Amino acid sequence: MNAVTDHLTDRGPAISINPPLRFADREARPEGTVLAVRGIWIGGPEVIVMAGPCAVESEEQILSTAEAVKQAGARILRGGAYKPRTSPYTFLGLREEGLKLLARARDETGLAVVTEVMDARHIDTVARYADILQIGSRNMQNFTLLEEVGKSRMPVLLKRGMSATIEEFLQAAEYVMKGGNHELMLCERGIRTFETSTRYTMDLNAVPVLKRYTHLPVIVDPSHGTGHWWMVPALARAAVAAGADGLLVEVHQKPEEALSDGPQSLAPAKFQVLMRELGAVAGAVGRNLRTQSP
Amino acid sequence: MNAVTDHLTDRGPAISINPPLRFADREARPEGTVLAVRGIWIGGPEVIVMAGPCAVESEEQILSTAEAVKQAGARILRGGAYKPRTSPYTFLGLREEGLKLLARARDETGLAVVTEVMDARHIDTVARYADILQIGSRNMQNFTLLEEVGKSRMPVLLKRGMSATIEEFLQAAEYVMKGGNHELMLCERGIRTFETSTRYTMDLNAVPVLKRYTHLPVIVDPSHGTGHWWMVPALARAAVAAGADGLLVEVHQKPEEALSDGPQSLAPAKFQVLMRELGAVAGAVGRNLRTQSP
Amino acid sequence: MNAVTDHLTDRGPAISINPPLRFADREARPEGTVLAVRGIWIGGPEVIVMAGPCAVESEEQILSTAEAVKQAGARILRGGAYKPRTSPYTFLGLREEGLKLLARARDETGLAVVTEVMDARHIDTVARYADILQIGSRNMQNFTLLEEVGKSRMPVLLKRGMSATIEEFLQAAEYVMKGGNHELMLCERGIRTFETSTRYTMDLNAVPVLKRYTHLPVIVDPSHGTGHWWMVPALARAAVAAGADGLLVEVHQKPEEALSDGPQSLAPAKFQVLMRELGAVAGAVGRNLRTQSP
Amino acid sequence: MNAVTDHLTDRGPAISINPPLRFADREARPEGTVLAVRGIWIGGPEVIVMAGPCAVESEEQILSTAEAVKQAGARILRGGAYKPRTSPYTFLGLREEGLKLLARARDETGLAVVTEVMDARHIDTVARYADILQIGSRNMQNFTLLEEVGKSRMPVLLKRGMSATIEEFLQAAEYVMKGGNHELMLCERGIRTFETSTRYTMDLNAVPVLKRYTHLPVIVDPSHGTGHWWMVPALARAAVAAGADGLLVEVHQKPEEALSDGPQSLAPAKFQVLMRELGAVAGAVGRNLRTQSP
Repeated sequence: MNAVTDHLTDRGPAISINPPLRFADREARPEGTVLAVRGIWIGGPEVIVMAGPCAVESEEQILSTAEAVKQAGARILRGGAYKPRTSPYTFLGLREEGLKLLARARDETGLAVVTEVMDARHIDTVARYADILQIGSRNMQNFTLLEEVGKSRMPVLLKRGMSATIEEFLQAAEYVMKGGNHELMLCERGIRTFETSTRYTMDLNAVPVLKRYTHLPVIVDPSHGTGHWWMVPALARAAVAAGADGLLVEVHQKPEEALSDGPQSLAPAKFQVLMRELGAVAGAVGRNLRTQSP
Repeated sequence: MNAVTDHLTDRGPAISINPPLRFADREARPEGTVLAVRGIWIGGPEVIVMAGPCAVESEEQILSTAEAVKQAGARILRGGAYKPRTSPYTFLGLREEGLKLLARARDETGLAVVTEVMDARHIDTVARYADILQIGSRNMQNFTLLEEVGKSRMPVLLKRGMSATIEEFLQAAEYVMKGGNHELMLCERGIRTFETSTRYTMDLNAVPVLKRYTHLPVIVDPSHGTGHWWMVPALARAAVAAGADGLLVEVHQKPEEALSDGPQSLAPAKFQVLMRELGAVAGAVGRNLRTQSP
Repeated sequence: MNAVTDHLTDRGPAISINPPLRFADREARPEGTVLAVRGIWIGGPEVIVMAGPCAVESEEQILSTAEAVKQAGARILRGGAYKPRTSPYTFLGLREEGLKLLARARDETGLAVVTEVMDARHIDTVARYADILQIGSRNMQNFTLLEEVGKSRMPVLLKRGMSATIEEFLQAAEYVMKGGNHELMLCERGIRTFETSTRYTMDLNAVPVLKRYTHLPVIVDPSHGTGHWWMVPALARAAVAAGADGLLVEVHQKPEEALSDGPQSLAPAKFQVLMRELGAVAGAVGRNLRTQSP
Repeated sequence: MNAVTDHLTDRGPAISINPPLRFADREARPEGTVLAVRGIWIGGPEVIVMAGPCAVESEEQILSTAEAVKQAGARILRGGAYKPRTSPYTFLGLREEGLKLLARARDETGLAVVTEVMDARHIDTVARYADILQIGSRNMQNFTLLEEVGKSRMPVLLKRGMSATIEEFLQAAEYVMKGGNHELMLCERGIRTFETSTRYTMDLNAVPVLKRYTHLPVIVDPSHGTGHWWMVPALARAAVAAGADGLLVEVHQKPEEALSDGPQSLAPAKFQVLMRELGAVAGAVGRNLRTQSP
């Protein structure tokens, strides 16, 4: 029942992946997968926006941001409790305390929650507070973690490694699905190139290619894909026009004070403007997107 | 008078390029540049589509394709007469004979013509038949060619090198403008990455970044940027949504018989469908795009 | 007392890493680190060769290969028991059974053993059978694994992520050292580029850069860095000439029958020739390298 | 009669390039090509060092540098008269005046001269003063320039494009040879990657790969390949150990005052030390290299 998306992506000749995908392959479910998370359908006609801060920093921060993104139409709250950071001397997240704050924000707003799990030993803990387990870019080929979330019954958002080929990305998805967990969505979040004026290079080629190779919903993260808040609107609109099923957007009440990723976070007022722009683009490609809280 | 585009691209903090751009810098013309080519405005509210075959192959081919793209709303005809090819043993173009056929197609359809010039010694010849001189990706840092087209009075479409940084691209533009020719537009055409499932990786980050650094119109080429005709619609829609001022699209009557770039060429019927999709997206971002011949 | 290596790498101006390294930084131990593993000194005048199959496949295979590489002068046996593989449908290793075979080969030959640990929950098991814990390229930013091996007392060989910058590599080393484990060596194993004729691109720039930024020993893996056995000798010689403290080389009795990485594995006879070539190069740069079992 | 080099590069299975190379292919001259330039043999047992400043800046500068590199054993003087520079506002070279100074330095020292030609219209002028025409990295796919030097009778040094695949590099060589000029050598000079701590990434994989695909001599440029003078010795030694037939090294009397590429230029005293190191490495791989003027 994903005719909208299929219409958008014209199909070319068959593609071979070696060894073949058994579960993630488009042919395994040609009509496309629609996931249901707390009553939200991901992969259907509605483009789903997941928004929130890079990291949970405090109760006030996460509650106010959750309320703001909800008002603007976001359906799912994002926020990191366990943070994979390049240096061990930077903010590594509030950990279980952060999870509790996310759950609190969920209770107050009704938004579903997506948050990262970095270690197989934390899956049960994270699952207690979140609705979607995020596997981060640096763990896309952490195969034991993939196997463990494959045994879980929680929906999973798998981010593409920052230098992973599409084929490697799909094989990583296969690790999860082979374990029995088919509640999976894929997220393109920017790749590493020679360019230095942006943090990563958003790879929107990935949207039609993934749509063609697999039936799984495709999410795009224009915040990491660009690294600059002022670029996020252009790439978010582009992602919807390209056929993405959802977006992951960093929003912070005071980007200049954020403990991480401030330069790529939108302030709530700009996020609200963006949501209206996205609503128009979604309509132009035969889909819909909520632009305010109902 | 480019308020539409400027509205689309939120401005962030100032950026420094070293040595500074004198002519191409956004601050030199904050309102944006609108070029006029045979009565077509490039850089204004209308998104301009340039379409046609990779290479001019025969009179019948170029005339019928020109007619087809015109009917679908294209404003400018593309087609290569001098072809930069990786191997010297492949089709290198009809050269001046190709230029004559392009001029013939222009006379019959009223479309303007853009075609590549590979050598400073050919500029006068190409200028005799074409409306826009294209500098190809492989020549983006052919500095003596840049200096020579800088002395010409012809509009120039400068393609980004397939591994050029944005800053290098802008410095190449500066070479042209320093010579006195300010009739310049820039074209993102895909960059080289580690990915092997596509020919290049379309870099739509380039659209907002270029819009911020320079006042020159920005064109996007989704045919080279993907290498697969079935991906072109998704990326063409995305480019318009991101704020591109125009598109360069390869169209061939019989892609399977094309002497070059067949796999990335759209057949006319698919191109017509695409143009209607693009019209809707353009409308959604406050612009317009012709979807049929008036 | 690593004067040899320091002589090889001329020092340039100071370099800043942010946030600064506390333990891995060159200034923390300007004379360089020499690790002792079962009586073998790594980081001293002797260039240490670690060799063996990609994966442990059978008792006969690992014992005969161990004997062959020992005869040629190798000091440490490599072999994978837990294999990180792109697809879940390929050979994933003999796991604990493979570890037992490695320990058996160690008992018979006296070679030390290096093998990969993929999961924090396996550290104790792997430590029971191996002398050096290898962290693979795909886990270079598996931060919870880095933290756990940081708590171990086992020497660690940390491989660079295939698209990690040098700075990220050093920050990953810092994660291990911050935990208290300073028995660490770094391994360059090829990076991902646009090139398609080789599996990865060996980055020998990494050798002098690492030598300058950190005091840790630097190992080079020309097997993964090239992907072709016939290229391994040229790059192995180059690595020694560039100042590497050791090499990691894949050797298989019958490369054409290997369950993984056959195309990049040297047969024992070729490995023996290579060792003699390496001995000559080591001598030319003021170091030594064993070319046969004593 | 290039047995030395062939011994160094073990041959693997046949490789296919499409369309096939007619002239550059290894099979066209399995024994390897040895070029003679002013009595210097390039591609034979002697490793040839070409050294000098990035750009010719003044008579005093080029003459003193020529003398210094000659004393240290260099056989060929490098120096740019026409400089391809990213920005039009930087030093673009002394042009014909620079060529005259190079010829003067040749007369005084007896060194042969290699210098870049950027434009087909300058070939005759450059040929009047130089012994080897260099085609720079940015012009590797300037096909009309390749065709023109292909018609010349001058030896050509073709630099690899900074993001060119090996196959594209070989096809570019084929353009030159197809024109009738077989006096060609290839130069690896570093490729563009995601790494930011170095200017480019030296690709020494290119040495054995080129040796296998083609019979042409292979030169390596560690100055551009690293961008830092303190890295040049390590990579120069590595290049010789990998089987390079020659090196291109930037040397400047006062690197801190150089008009271009100062940070990657060696001062003469350091160059002299390097030459002795290279002599030892060349000997270790069965070749020789002059370490002082005879």
